[in-house]
Amino acid sequence: MQKTLRYLEDYPVGGSEEFGEIVVDADEIRDFASKWDPQPFHLGDGGGPEGPYGGLIASGWHTGVMVMKMLVTQGAISGETSMGSPGLDIRWKAPVRPGDRLRAQLNITENRPSQTKPDRGTLRFDCIVRNQNDEVVMTIDWVAIIRRRPPTSP
Amino acid sequence: MQKTLRYLEDYPVGGSEEFGEIVVDADEIRDFASKWDPQPFHLGDGGGPEGPYGGLIASGWHTGVMVMKMLVTQGAISGETSMGSPGLDIRWKAPVRPGDRLRAQLNITENRPSQTKPDRGTLRFDCIVRNQNDEVVMTIDWVAIIRRRPPTSP
Repeated sequence: MQKTLRYLEDYPVGGSEEFGEIVVDADEIRDFASKWDPQPFHLGDGGGPEGPYGGLIASGWHTGVMVMKMLVTQGAISGETSMGSPGLDIRWKAPVRPGDRLRAQLNITENRPSQTKPDRGTLRFDCIVRNQNDEVVMTIDWVAIIRRRPPTSP
Repeated sequence: MQKTLRYLEDYPVGGSEEFGEIVVDADEIRDFASKWDPQPFHLGDGGGPEGPYGGLIASGWHTGVMVMKMLVTQGAISGETSMGSPGLDIRWKAPVRPGDRLRAQLNITENRPSQTKPDRGTLRFDCIVRNQNDEVVMTIDWVAIIRRRPPTSP
């Protein structure tokens, strides 16, 4: 996939972007959970109608990485200019179920060049993930360290 | 693995528990990243000594799920009494590299029976993850919904 490199300067505060969609797969829910989060409501039929969520739901970690992958592969974040994250504040608002179709909205809230390292800065955005019924299923207050655009050669 | 069911009553505020250890594997770092977080510092040799972290480091999501898996399989959280999480606040403090050995300390900070649903309550703990050099690599302010111990039959 051809992607444009995005530098810190390419994320204006107040900007809003949309990414999607992810179609949630039942077997992938089970595979992810059996490897990383083997709780009954993420496995098999999730306990069926009597389970705590009335059936199979995705691990919240799985929902997180589905969105992470989308943000990288759809160019919201460029792997070549990203320098990782100091942290995330995640809220899971509603269950994610097989067949759900998820979209992410990114609202840029902060863009702050480093005072000490001239090649980088802090980007902060609200990531709001909704399903096909426009229900918010997850929000992430996301902080990322992003490279600044290099000075052009003279 | 034989595990004891843990109910909300089994997490006294002020209690502290230790779990571990996880040995971080280079191929698993790459496999996880190629599937979920394909940024260059999580793939191949991570850009080598010139990369942003001086070599391969684990995705923060990967570190998160390594700990999640450990907490479930070592019985910190019982899948049968856990009812999921409304959210986590994660901080990544230091890189996690191949060969690192990680331990988690859980400090229980809150234990609050639900006012409206008598079968459950809110558990909150600080999860502090350290490596073999006692460096803190990740902290999570973790909230979980846990079943209360059922009334004994008369």
